[in-house]
Amino acid sequence: MRTGLEEKLAGLEEGDPVPAERALAEEFAVARETVRQALHDLLVEGRIARRGRGTVVSAPKLLQPLSLQSYTEGAKKHGRTPSRDLVQFIEVDADDALCDDLELAPGSRVLHLERVLLADGAKLGLEITYLPVDRFGAFLTTFDPATSLYAAVRATGVEFASAHERIETALASPREAALLETTTSMPMILLHRRSLDPDGRPIEKVRSLYRGDRIAFEAVLRE
Amino acid sequence: MRTGLEEKLAGLEEGDPVPAERALAEEFAVARETVRQALHDLLVEGRIARRGRGTVVSAPKLLQPLSLQSYTEGAKKHGRTPSRDLVQFIEVDADDALCDDLELAPGSRVLHLERVLLADGAKLGLEITYLPVDRFGAFLTTFDPATSLYAAVRATGVEFASAHERIETALASPREAALLETTTSMPMILLHRRSLDPDGRPIEKVRSLYRGDRIAFEAVLRE
Repeated sequence: MRTGLEEKLAGLEEGDPVPAERALAEEFAVARETVRQALHDLLVEGRIARRGRGTVVSAPKLLQPLSLQSYTEGAKKHGRTPSRDLVQFIEVDADDALCDDLELAPGSRVLHLERVLLADGAKLGLEITYLPVDRFGAFLTTFDPATSLYAAVRATGVEFASAHERIETALASPREAALLETTTSMPMILLHRRSLDPDGRPIEKVRSLYRGDRIAFEAVLRE
Repeated sequence: MRTGLEEKLAGLEEGDPVPAERALAEEFAVARETVRQALHDLLVEGRIARRGRGTVVSAPKLLQPLSLQSYTEGAKKHGRTPSRDLVQFIEVDADDALCDDLELAPGSRVLHLERVLLADGAKLGLEITYLPVDRFGAFLTTFDPATSLYAAVRATGVEFASAHERIETALASPREAALLETTTSMPMILLHRRSLDPDGRPIEKVRSLYRGDRIAFEAVLRE
């Protein structure tokens, strides 16, 4: 069933409608429950997607390099147009863990920038960045959240030298699922990043939650 | 509710029982359904785990470096004892995609080694490795699947120089979920690796599926 269905999808173009459950059950002479399970798996893998009340063949997953680049470069490399929707951009008190991570005195203030990341208008992920106010506080009035934050940081003369990244899988909270137009049962990729400048001074702390059906990461490892 | 529950867990030791749903609902004055959802989230995050008919506080996730090392080093670094359970070790025909990846002539034979990876006896992941028979065929009789494959490869004089890794999230199939003693709704981390020797010749193709509640990966990225 699964192999036959994959062959069928391979013959379709991106955006083409996927045949109805009943038609597939008849074609492969299996129970509708079997078809439903196979379609659910393909949905989680990002091979097909819901569109309105129907199901269509998806674009391939965006393959994003695990690198110091922002997601913008990855999207452009694949010929996709990146954009960002602002959720919130505010100044807040940093909690103790965040002060530790950013090497700030307890009770320091940070910028909290939360944006939905898109490629060709499709929501890929939700990114929350924390930046020290003492270094980047002016961004609150000067930075355009629709543009690249890394470009803005570099424009202040600060260079990114290294980043520590933690990669996990997670489920979205109801709020996150709503912002990303998915469900709380869709596996997500959760990244925590801490970026340092050439002096080893922390620049930012980032929490990114990516839709597992729309993105994969790649890395080249060397001795 | 969630914050209160986290504080409660923080006061417990690894392996301690988590209070029953009903007791938690009373303590926090919330509906049992709210408690159930919060416990489900903590289960997916690996903070708590089922043990028999009860629920206990989990060991922290194993943090595995994204590197050319095998998972053995990561486990040992965290003071855990790695082991491997053999699922199957057979010689098979490679399909076209695998022949491409391993730069073999169409129809070549490969070793198919499938093992469950464990740390301190807990099942962490399911790893399938494909190795060219023309290079490593002797392993079928000489290699002990309970030991490190990378050590065996190195013992033949072959060095690992680089690897291309693709990182995704996925759900386990019913067979994979059974082998890893989890469910088909638990988010998993799926890695595809292709390792090369110093001449750029492919050594292996690997598909690893890790339990998202038991493992996280970390990488240090540099310019």
